[in-house]
Amino acid sequence: MTGARSGRRAGDSGTREAIVTAARRRFAENGYDGATIRGIAADAGVDPALVLHFHGTKERLFAASLQLTVVPGELITSVLAAERRRLGEEFTGHLGEIVVRSVLTVWEKEDARASFVGMLRSAATNEQAARMLREFVTTTIMTALSQAVGPDAGEPDPATRRYRASLVASQVIGLAFTRYVLQLAPVTSASAAELVAAIGPTIQRYLTGDLSSG
Amino acid sequence: MTGARSGRRAGDSGTREAIVTAARRRFAENGYDGATIRGIAADAGVDPALVLHFHGTKERLFAASLQLTVVPGELITSVLAAERRRLGEEFTGHLGEIVVRSVLTVWEKEDARASFVGMLRSAATNEQAARMLREFVTTTIMTALSQAVGPDAGEPDPATRRYRASLVASQVIGLAFTRYVLQLAPVTSASAAELVAAIGPTIQRYLTGDLSSG
Repeated sequence: MTGARSGRRAGDSGTREAIVTAARRRFAENGYDGATIRGIAADAGVDPALVLHFHGTKERLFAASLQLTVVPGELITSVLAAERRRLGEEFTGHLGEIVVRSVLTVWEKEDARASFVGMLRSAATNEQAARMLREFVTTTIMTALSQAVGPDAGEPDPATRRYRASLVASQVIGLAFTRYVLQLAPVTSASAAELVAAIGPTIQRYLTGDLSSG
Repeated sequence: MTGARSGRRAGDSGTREAIVTAARRRFAENGYDGATIRGIAADAGVDPALVLHFHGTKERLFAASLQLTVVPGELITSVLAAERRRLGEEFTGHLGEIVVRSVLTVWEKEDARASFVGMLRSAATNEQAARMLREFVTTTIMTALSQAVGPDAGEPDPATRRYRASLVASQVIGLAFTRYVLQLAPVTSASAAELVAAIGPTIQRYLTGDLSSG
């Protein structure tokens, strides 16, 4: 069965999956502007019209390719829930290292790293992609993080929780950018354990520490 | 009129422009470290001495080629030297807030912010530009920072100084990316004073704190 043949059946989830897989790779390699519907269709072995039939627009396809890789918000929520059960009262004090270890574990998987780096590349060069990534980070990752430092973890103010979560995003995104995009030597070659020890306390302070003075 | 002839007149803006154009091409092709004053001069059809006459140093020529309004390595070195004179023995303890306040002050100038964001955008999508930015950050910005935490500030090991400087780069670049490129709401709307208070201690710890445990 070729991709083109299977594509004739609109309900074929294999074709839909092949298109999204091709899109994910193209967006990662070429960024949002550089990836074309035509190129994605060619990679998936289908007609460009079928890509549009399934996904409507390049933007929707981009969104679909984000949702079908690791879903960061869900992942963070489930990791934090598991760690909360495991650590009990100590959970809040270990949030920083849990966050750093989790993102590094995810990024060790090449697919997940490639899709995140692709998101950064796209956001860097295209306002539409930046808006999508911004909304995505806000509605999933920041929501998951700000729940973790909610009232029962000592931060009753929702605006402060969002500020804390955005500071975490600034360091986590900066880590990804220097480690994988810029490939700045010592950060790139450092082990996960070294980075958890170095950056974990930063994230911990952003989530639960005093932010108004040094 | 050839480049070589125009080069004889030191005030000739055409020659200056030819040198910058040649530099831009060489930096893109060979990276920051690989590009030489000699090679750039040859491409522009002028004597290497004339390149130095116009631009002083390779870093300044690089800044000119990117239309940067500031020379980052020089700026950091001069800000740190001024603060060291002003604060005396307290200098080392205030490094974190000095670094955050300095970059935010520079980025408040639209030209400087646009150049830096342009460098990030280019590096995000083009391996050649990433290599150039990586080498530039390493040989200028990280060198300036690692001098600031050198033996007299308590860090005798050069490899550790580089690691510390690269951690600083991860947070500073992440701040620029979330504040100006991604425009993630609370980080984007926060005042410079708020960010200095929130992020200064992170930079301080990366430069002078214990990185091996939380």
